[in-house]
Amino acid sequence: MRLTFLGTGGVWAAPVHGCACVACSRARADDTLRRRPASALVECDGFRLLIDGGREDLPELFPPGTLDAMLLTHFHPDHVLGLFRLRWSKAERLTVFCPPDAVGCDDLRRHCGRLEFREVEPFVAFDLGPVTVTAVPLIHSRLTFGWLVAYRGKRLAYLSDTIGLPEATVSFLAPLAVDTLVLDCAYPPNGGPGRNHNDIDEAIAIVKALGPHRCLLTHINHDLDEWLARNPVPEPRIERATDGMVVSV
Amino acid sequence: MRLTFLGTGGVWAAPVHGCACVACSRARADDTLRRRPASALVECDGFRLLIDGGREDLPELFPPGTLDAMLLTHFHPDHVLGLFRLRWSKAERLTVFCPPDAVGCDDLRRHCGRLEFREVEPFVAFDLGPVTVTAVPLIHSRLTFGWLVAYRGKRLAYLSDTIGLPEATVSFLAPLAVDTLVLDCAYPPNGGPGRNHNDIDEAIAIVKALGPHRCLLTHINHDLDEWLARNPVPEPRIERATDGMVVSV
Repeated sequence: MRLTFLGTGGVWAAPVHGCACVACSRARADDTLRRRPASALVECDGFRLLIDGGREDLPELFPPGTLDAMLLTHFHPDHVLGLFRLRWSKAERLTVFCPPDAVGCDDLRRHCGRLEFREVEPFVAFDLGPVTVTAVPLIHSRLTFGWLVAYRGKRLAYLSDTIGLPEATVSFLAPLAVDTLVLDCAYPPNGGPGRNHNDIDEAIAIVKALGPHRCLLTHINHDLDEWLARNPVPEPRIERATDGMVVSV
Repeated sequence: MRLTFLGTGGVWAAPVHGCACVACSRARADDTLRRRPASALVECDGFRLLIDGGREDLPELFPPGTLDAMLLTHFHPDHVLGLFRLRWSKAERLTVFCPPDAVGCDDLRRHCGRLEFREVEPFVAFDLGPVTVTAVPLIHSRLTFGWLVAYRGKRLAYLSDTIGLPEATVSFLAPLAVDTLVLDCAYPPNGGPGRNHNDIDEAIAIVKALGPHRCLLTHINHDLDEWLARNPVPEPRIERATDGMVVSV
């Protein structure tokens, strides 16, 4: 399985408009340090599965015939903005597996065009081309599912957006000791109150609870990038993802 | 007054994903023929006024200090997508004059960040820097205002999105004989039923009713571009706008 990060940014991802912090200044000067909105691509055996569609240029990134299906974590704008144009495609339909959130984002579900939203139940595995997919509940300000993607005994868990994890999700995932965990981590330590995303301490606690072989942090805000410029990631098996990064699972 | 078209595309603007029509094929091959989502910039005396924010790259197009205010026609996604990132600016606040549509687009009004939405009444002129602005009601599937911008006796009317015009708007605008009319025209003649945008015959009727010196069509879909590739615009004072076009008013 090959995972490509297309967008690893949180809502306040570098560069933030008008922000002069180290992370934003660097991202403005060097396009490779920029963090785009949440999107990732999973490929295996020629099967191409998009996770989230925050990138506005989805129609250009994926010409007709280059996507087989999509997994959506939730309907916050920074995860679906790219679908507002893609829905009017003249090409084949795209099935978007999603949580049962009937409201969706603005008129996206009501006027879905060529997108076919298919609500799934958590913890119920289903086959999708060569992979097996299972939705797992997360903890966020909107109904959100993480996604477990399994292929020939290898497992990828994509858990974003979330702050902490429901007990049922920990109980389900921990025994699997997934190979690669992609995890929401938006803030440096002591992220403060009123959040809907992990800070780095909470991300480390999740990694300890789930025991993955490797963890990649995503949904990163500029203040975490600034903190990481001065501090190493505190656990050797945890790395931060970057836009364009390709990972073998 | 200087008007720059930043986005002249309708919802089905060229290139449409997976469409092989003449307009879409040309726009795919030549970036200058591409039509981006609705946005335009009005400048005079160093004052910079954005009309609509459909372009997703608004934060990059307008670094801090380069916009003084914004006029929003309505809250459909293709007119506000660029505001979803711009709202989290660390720079000065941006006042967005808009119709009294409390729902807005998804969570944009509820979580408005540095945007300050200010609802206006139609037909009530107000001063904004060196210009005088008046909202006029349009006819669309969502509460929509066109904008009249006046500067030293010159008048620009930006009327999109609309199908036809309310009588009150015609009565208000016709005696002014505006210098430049920017007008919604999404479809070729006989656009068919169930539309919320003018076809070219309806646009011509509006031009005859309002008597502007010059009319520029905007919110153009690929099928109108295809039709215009084979047919001249039927009235000499009507032109189609293109992305990047600059007009003196």
